[in-house]
Order: sequence, then C-alpha cells, then structure tokens
Amino acid sequence: MITLFSERHALHAPAFEFFRGERVPCFETPARAAFVKECLLQGGHALREPHADSRALLGQVHSARYLAFLENAWGDWLAQDAANAARQPFPSVWPVRTLRSDVEPANFTARLGLYSMDNGSPLTAGTWAAAKAGADAAASAAALLSEGAAAVFCCSRPPGHHAGADFMGGYCFLNNAAVAAQALRNGGADRVAVLDVDYHHGNGTQSIFYDRADVLFVSLHGDPRTEYPFYLGHADETGEGAGQGFNVNLPLPAGSSVGVWFDALEQGCLRIAKHGAQALVVSLGLDTFEDDPISTFTLRPADFYRLGRRLAALGLPTVFVLEGGYAAEALGSNAVQVIDGFEQGY
Amino acid sequence: MITLFSERHALHAPAFEFFRGERVPCFETPARAAFVKECLLQGGHALREPHADSRALLGQVHSARYLAFLENAWGDWLAQDAANAARQPFPSVWPVRTLRSDVEPANFTARLGLYSMDNGSPLTAGTWAAAKAGADAAASAAALLSEGAAAVFCCSRPPGHHAGADFMGGYCFLNNAAVAAQALRNGGADRVAVLDVDYHHGNGTQSIFYDRADVLFVSLHGDPRTEYPFYLGHADETGEGAGQGFNVNLPLPAGSSVGVWFDALEQGCLRIAKHGAQALVVSLGLDTFEDDPISTFTLRPADFYRLGRRLAALGLPTVFVLEGGYAAEALGSNAVQVIDGFEQGY
Repeated sequence: MITLFSERHALHAPAFEFFRGERVPCFETPARAAFVKECLLQGGHALREPHADSRALLGQVHSARYLAFLENAWGDWLAQDAANAARQPFPSVWPVRTLRSDVEPANFTARLGLYSMDNGSPLTAGTWAAAKAGADAAASAAALLSEGAAAVFCCSRPPGHHAGADFMGGYCFLNNAAVAAQALRNGGADRVAVLDVDYHHGNGTQSIFYDRADVLFVSLHGDPRTEYPFYLGHADETGEGAGQGFNVNLPLPAGSSVGVWFDALEQGCLRIAKHGAQALVVSLGLDTFEDDPISTFTLRPADFYRLGRRLAALGLPTVFVLEGGYAAEALGSNAVQVIDGFEQGY
Repeated sequence: MITLFSERHALHAPAFEFFRGERVPCFETPARAAFVKECLLQGGHALREPHADSRALLGQVHSARYLAFLENAWGDWLAQDAANAARQPFPSVWPVRTLRSDVEPANFTARLGLYSMDNGSPLTAGTWAAAKAGADAAASAAALLSEGAAAVFCCSRPPGHHAGADFMGGYCFLNNAAVAAQALRNGGADRVAVLDVDYHHGNGTQSIFYDRADVLFVSLHGDPRTEYPFYLGHADETGEGAGQGFNVNLPLPAGSSVGVWFDALEQGCLRIAKHGAQALVVSLGLDTFEDDPISTFTLRPADFYRLGRRLAALGLPTVFVLEGGYAAEALGSNAVQVIDGFEQGY
C-alpha cells in the first residue's frame, strides 16, 4: 500500500488544551504521527511526500470565510499583541441557538468562537501548514487512486473528521476525509463512500455531505449521548434533501464489546456495497483500541488486522486517512495491522 | 422608589472564570450587590424582600428542560463525583451550526454545553437559589406595579439579560427582565417595553421576545462586532413574524462619547413612547461607567442621574433590574444616581 507522509504535521504542536475546565497536556501530539511513521518504515513501507495541492478541493468542502480565517489566524493573533507569540488563543463565546453566525465579528477571539465547536482545538503558529499538508495528502491519495493505485494510507495529523464546512473542533481543522471523497468524485467516481471507524462520530464529514447522494457517509462510534461530540451521531440522522438515506450512523453504547463493534462494521460494509460505491475513504481512528486513554471500546491488534481484511473484501480503491487514537505508542503498530490485514485480504 | 433585595444573591459566588483561555477571578461578585445595598440604605431607601414566586413566569420565558437542568445541575454534578463539590463545572463543547440541540445528552458536561453560550458563566452550589431570588424580585416588582407602585428597583444578581430561553451565558442564568416584562403582561399591561442600557447587548431578552409585538425590546450597547456577546445586537435585527418592527438595536462603536450615548437613548425613548407602552422594564447595566474595567463608554455619575430623569419623563410604571457593572465600588452610587434622577424627574 502506498503510504503518504509529510514532516509538516509536526508544525502543529500545541502545548496544552482545555478538557472540561481543566488545563491539560494535549492528547493530540506530533508523537502520534511519529510512532506511525516509524512502524510504517519498520514494516517496509516506503513513505512518499504528498504531491497534490488541495486548495481548490478545500474550497469545495469548506467555506471560503472559514479557510481565510484559518490561514490567517495566527497572523491576526500576533497582530493583536506581539506577546501573543507565546500564548495559545482560545475562544470563550459560541454562536448557539438564536445567536448569529452570518456576521463575522472584528474581535479575534469572537471570530475564533464563530469558527469553533469547542475549546479543545488549540491553534498554533503551524496549525494551518500542518493541516494543509494533511489535506494535500488526502488530495494526493485520491489522485493516486485515479491513476490506478489500489489503496493509499495517509499518515497525517491533526485529524479532520470533526471539522465542519465552517468550523474546527475535536483537534480537527481541515476535513481530510471530505477532501479525499470530493477529490475522488472530481476524479470520476460517481459514487463514493466514507466509512468512519473512529471512536468518535465524524460530525464534520456527516454535515459536509448531509444533503448529497453521491457521497455515502457511514459511521460506527460511541453513542453521542455519552461520548464526544455529543450533539450529532444519532441513528435517526439519515440525510436530508437529495442526501436522504445516504447517511448511516451506528452509535454503540460506551463499553460495547468487540463482537458488537464488528457486527456494526458488517452492517456498514453491507450498506457501502449496496451504495455501489466506486471508491472508499476510511476515516481511520484507532481510538477504539483497548488501551486508549479517552475511549471505551476494547479492540486489540488482531482486531485491527481483521478490520483491514474486512475493508479489503469490499474490493474498492481505498484512501485511509488517520483520525484519532491517543495511545500514541500503540498507534503505529495498530495502523500497520489495518494495512497488513487490508493487503492480505485484498 | 421601592427597592427589593434578597441576601440570597450571595449564594452565587464562583471563585474563578475563564476569559479568553485564561483562568481569572470572577468579575461578577457578591460584592457588587453588597455595594448597591449599602448605598441604597445610605440613601434612605428601605429594602424589601421579594414576595412573589416567579416559577410560573419562568416557565413562560424559559424552556422547561433548561429550567430543569439549571435547578438540578449542582446535584447532578455532585452525583457524578463527590469530589466535584470543590470544583466548578465548565462546558467544553457547544452545539453550533449543523450540531443538534434537540437531543439532551446524558453526559453532564455536554448538557452544560447544550445550555450555555460561553464558558464564562460558572455554576456553583448556590447558583439556582441566587438566580431564582433575582427572578422572584422581578416578579415581585411587576406585582407591585400592578398594585399601583410607580417604580421598583431590584437589587439582585447574577444578572439576566444574556440568558436566552434555553441557555445561560455572560454571567446570566435566568432572564429577570423577561420575567418582569412577562409578569407585567400577565398583570394586564397590553404593551410593555424593555429598555436595555447595559454596555453589552441583551441578546437573551431580544431572543425571548423576538417574535412578539406585545413586548418591545430596545437596546443601546457597544457594537457586537467588537464587544460581547459578538453574535447578536446588530441594527438590522428588527424582529420576526408578529414581532417584526418590535426589536430595536442601537449599537454604538466602542469608545463612543457620552453625547452619542444620550442621542441613542433619546432615540430609544422616542420609540418606546411610540409603542404606547403601558409599563417599562429597564435592564440597568452600569458598565457604561467611565471606570468600568471591561467596557469602553465613559458615563459619569451625573450622567446616570440624567439617565434616571430621562426615563422618568417617559411617565411609565417602571421596573429596574440590575444587570452588569464591574466597577463594584462605584456600582452602588451610580445605581442611586439613576434612582435619584428618576424620582426627581418623575
């Protein structure tokens, strides 16, 4: 399997985040991608640099004003106060019900809140560059599939699946899975499927494609009643307008067994087959791992191998984008299990 | 002027809040009401306890599920972990665009986010009791007007005008101004006006009455492009449905002069007179004061006296509810200036 990697991921390295009112070290660290890279190299995978520019694709899945904000955010933050170079900006107000999202405030912190769904996604000097490199990898992967590659794995971070058309959240800034899916559509695939196996519901990806029939979104995840992102990911969210029936959520109670998880995976795979998808994007979160510090499923390495085999059985050109997974040291070996299972099964 | 006061305000005394990512001491403190109380007593005003129960009124201006959450929040927080008694809960995720507000999560922090617009409104063990006492004061004040009183001043906190039908924010939990306005309607006034002179736009009050013609909302405030609450308070928000034309925002650039402020006040007063209001509720924020630590207008004590006189000239039965104002020591004397001006002018 072709694997894509850019060292630019490390440009996004926030020092701390807020978790329920407490200042804590970041869960989403450069070490995550570094561990995956190392395991890929040990497994004999040659790493390629992303070669495509995702800018036009980003404009298809994100709003222009959000992209402009994100690209200029650090500069704007510094322009406000030079001492901000040593500080991380955080929002403090959010435009919930009855408040407006259509007028962009001048105040930087208010703009940050406008474009955020949480206060757990710290911006740094290198956030745009790192996130853009991840989107470039997703675009490159789709281009490689269009050229005939069977499968491409994008070893990039920060993750993307919580990022909506016009907001960041859950450590995510640019929606790599959405970029890949859109690129596959642009490249000629009439029907694409996104399968999100991260522990957390991919609210951003769902919302980007919610009114579209050409991109099926299927997600298995911890029930949002108790698990992040809390406000999306229920089974009754089935799409709207032309997209009605093309959104499939399979929420599983916290602590669900491996057997229950694979039953849901099977259900999702059958739906993807029924869609007649010509290409697949996998939002590969590995936080379903039994030792993950912030999740409650109990997959083991052999289960990730099994996951890879099942995905291969779909017989589709496939882009893998790395999403969550916070047991950083195990992240690499678990990712390689998925790849090995996929290659074995293909 | 009758003045209402309950010591229960002091039950809401959070230790700290978050301001743009930094943990800072609270601006909205029990000392605020204590200073006002002291100045009222020094000015010869007898203080009365609120006598009305606002519960039914609260159900008219807030959603049932929000009220249930707020009343039980501290108990739920403790039930989650006994050690939480020494902690302040803070939300970390908010249901912005594309995320759902219709399903209440089971997770406490997620419910707190569902019912919040910011992370600057810390909940404590006594928040419900203090906020309820403030709402009771507003209900009592309206009842006193219905019995013939000319004007009543409610010395209560936490403030209320940022609280929407189903969310807290900006140090506000229950919307006292909305309670008073609704009580006046219930008491027989066909047309009521709410005038909000706090430095910050009263987004909660606006949204509660936005589709109603019976309660006119007029606000003069710092321009939300640069000032909290950022996402509401623009001049083009004029009401909707039956309420079209009954919402008047007069945003003023940060740093506007006292002259500009009084011009806007005059405009607001003329609109209230045109409404044919039979009763008036004043959301009396005193953070337009020149020494206020978080605002940019420059009113002096004599200006607050002038404000009181102008309001008296409307010739309406009037309820004053205390909103913001964070130069705590000056808060009392400035409040008394408004009262004295009102009594002089009436």
